[in-house]
Amino acid sequence: MVPIPESSLPRVIIIGGGFAGVKLVKKLKKLPLQIVLFDRNNYHTFQPLLYQVATAGLEPDSIADPLRKQLEPAHNFFFRMGEVQSIDPDKNTINTEIGELGYDYLVIATGSRTNFFGNVSLMQHAFPLKQIPQALDLRSHILQNFEAATITEDLMEKKSRMNIVVVGGGPTGVEVAGALGELKRSILPKDYPELDFGKMSIILLEASPRLLGGMSEKSSERALRYLKKFHVDVYLNTLVETYDGKSAKLSNGEHINTHTLIWGAGVKGNYPEGLPEEAIERSRILVDEYSRMRGSNNIFAIGDISAMKTDEYPNAHPMLAPVAIQQGDHLAINLKNALQNRPLKSFKYFDKGSMATVGRNKAVVDFPGKGTLGGFPAWIVWMFIHLISIIGFRNRLIVFLNWVWNYFTYDKGTRLIIRKFVPSKLKKQEAEVF
Amino acid sequence: MVPIPESSLPRVIIIGGGFAGVKLVKKLKKLPLQIVLFDRNNYHTFQPLLYQVATAGLEPDSIADPLRKQLEPAHNFFFRMGEVQSIDPDKNTINTEIGELGYDYLVIATGSRTNFFGNVSLMQHAFPLKQIPQALDLRSHILQNFEAATITEDLMEKKSRMNIVVVGGGPTGVEVAGALGELKRSILPKDYPELDFGKMSIILLEASPRLLGGMSEKSSERALRYLKKFHVDVYLNTLVETYDGKSAKLSNGEHINTHTLIWGAGVKGNYPEGLPEEAIERSRILVDEYSRMRGSNNIFAIGDISAMKTDEYPNAHPMLAPVAIQQGDHLAINLKNALQNRPLKSFKYFDKGSMATVGRNKAVVDFPGKGTLGGFPAWIVWMFIHLISIIGFRNRLIVFLNWVWNYFTYDKGTRLIIRKFVPSKLKKQEAEVF
Repeated sequence: MVPIPESSLPRVIIIGGGFAGVKLVKKLKKLPLQIVLFDRNNYHTFQPLLYQVATAGLEPDSIADPLRKQLEPAHNFFFRMGEVQSIDPDKNTINTEIGELGYDYLVIATGSRTNFFGNVSLMQHAFPLKQIPQALDLRSHILQNFEAATITEDLMEKKSRMNIVVVGGGPTGVEVAGALGELKRSILPKDYPELDFGKMSIILLEASPRLLGGMSEKSSERALRYLKKFHVDVYLNTLVETYDGKSAKLSNGEHINTHTLIWGAGVKGNYPEGLPEEAIERSRILVDEYSRMRGSNNIFAIGDISAMKTDEYPNAHPMLAPVAIQQGDHLAINLKNALQNRPLKSFKYFDKGSMATVGRNKAVVDFPGKGTLGGFPAWIVWMFIHLISIIGFRNRLIVFLNWVWNYFTYDKGTRLIIRKFVPSKLKKQEAEVF
Repeated sequence: MVPIPESSLPRVIIIGGGFAGVKLVKKLKKLPLQIVLFDRNNYHTFQPLLYQVATAGLEPDSIADPLRKQLEPAHNFFFRMGEVQSIDPDKNTINTEIGELGYDYLVIATGSRTNFFGNVSLMQHAFPLKQIPQALDLRSHILQNFEAATITEDLMEKKSRMNIVVVGGGPTGVEVAGALGELKRSILPKDYPELDFGKMSIILLEASPRLLGGMSEKSSERALRYLKKFHVDVYLNTLVETYDGKSAKLSNGEHINTHTLIWGAGVKGNYPEGLPEEAIERSRILVDEYSRMRGSNNIFAIGDISAMKTDEYPNAHPMLAPVAIQQGDHLAINLKNALQNRPLKSFKYFDKGSMATVGRNKAVVDFPGKGTLGGFPAWIVWMFIHLISIIGFRNRLIVFLNWVWNYFTYDKGTRLIIRKFVPSKLKKQEAEVF
């Protein structure tokens, strides 16, 4: 049993301190509920900027905030660090690595994890980018390869250690490829004057005919143009078939020698065991317009893990931070309604638009009313939105200062190999993720 | 062979990018020498603030600076990341994990490492504090113990997980104990309202009759008084005899239950193999007043690793950053003299005083002319000297902002368990250090 003080209040357990879970906890604290939040980490991760940790732009403390600090103490709120392994909907209990606990209401907000679509060679050798330790490993791995490139006299190996392949032309792939392009263009040549950066390739692979499939065609074209300016080669309609850690075989028959392949091509839901089969579709939890899991009255799912199908979104809502935040907010209102025996309200997603950045002075923005923005104005919008979205004034300040510094000095300060990356770690880490 | 371009210039190899090595490289670049710097890390560590990384005050990027960035490119300078394993003074070569390399001059600036004086139980279970990964592990370990304390109903275990023992009343021990006291007093109770902090003990052990043995009696007394204000219990004339990871047996017969024992009670020289026996005394390299190793004309040692005995310092100079910096500076002048066939100059240490901080508004300073300072003025002096000593304007700015933030908010922002600490790591890490 996880020790939680006895209480006469109904207990709601929330699994996951991401965007959805944090928003929900903040809104629930004033209600007559005992709230227990579980997360395997003691911090919330601001995932949209994770790629900047991987590319030496930010340290983890800029994008991570301790959950206990963020969710200030309240008599009815308890945080427990630990992975939730399974749920027993019949007994209304969860099983976690630190013990069992019963609930009156359960909210699953466990987000998504990397999806390699069963490709074992990628699972073993590609770098995922969903968690802070993964971003730090990638940073170390890239820098270690540049150190290794300076001491090899084998020209093929030298090039392979400098080359980087990014798979997936969604926002993550575009942003990480752009940031690597900036490193190649302005920063690494200063650190490694011995290396010929004309020989380094950054290749972005996208399976479909255009980048940023979720955005407008105009934004796709702009992103493609900007990436070229940052020395990124974009291959559209191209998949990676296998990768052995040194050579990637593409669907067009080409082989690319690279020690670094970053995987940003797929995510899937990340739910604990024990849920009824009829509630799961393509690894996400089917919910109604009140975020209630199919077939249950007291289990809810919000954020990336939930699949809420509506007339407007017949294939479920997109897996985006704003959806998660709005669902957290909305579920708090409905739980309050439920406690007061008032009718529940249907969720309606308010789409504020979408955006992606490529690099210095270059971003793309789609407004909901079909307007688009590119270049410097879009870049300013992107920065402003991300800054105000980061939770905690301290983090906002540190990110802002790092950005100002990076912008004016053409420098990125965290080119540190704090823990050397050893390939065996990758497998282990993935094992933890799955 | 480590590949370094052919050159007609004499080659000087410097081992270690600490205070001494970095200063030396900067001064040598304009001379007709080929300079090769080896370090096992790609960054310089500002060790005086390492304890703030361990106590959630700073992130690693504040106190680490990439060596390649700091030592800007020059046609005659090469950095190589890799551990130097042994030296062959007869063949004038070094053996490293990345290959062999010959030298004309060799400078050993490898600093010091933790000394457990052969106590195996401490070696296996105590936390050293000499490197950034060690500081991060300690930070995670402390926070993990607080999470564990919230879920145990065994009161003895709860207390043991909260208790912290610090061994060694030198600057490191005093500073880390003071910082932990601040965490206990102002920060952790906000994060863990469920825990009773009256039950948490922070104990500082010192084998001699007073703290800060290298400083004035007045400063020792002040430090003792300040530590009490930060809820630190100081045991003088007390040693730890054994520690099994849960209970520490002290020389006064007492047993203290604690999951965390921090070892700041000893360092020793950290030199590669292959040096002649007559050149080593108590794990340091004996050098003359020109920093030349005993029995050699082209091997030098500077910083903590060197033992330079003079009339003023018959037991060798103290192992302090200012000595290292001045020796690096001085050796550069003498190498220039040697290249120009001019007589060498003897080293003379210019003692600017010493200092230690205990916590918020409390520090002690000894001036060389026997004057002392305590309390708030000493704290301001301490902060100012440390800020101007950090290399790199970006690091200085980030440290300054973190300090301002911590001061006014009574908050420390990096309470993050980024990589969970697993006890087996400790042994592995120590194995690497030795």
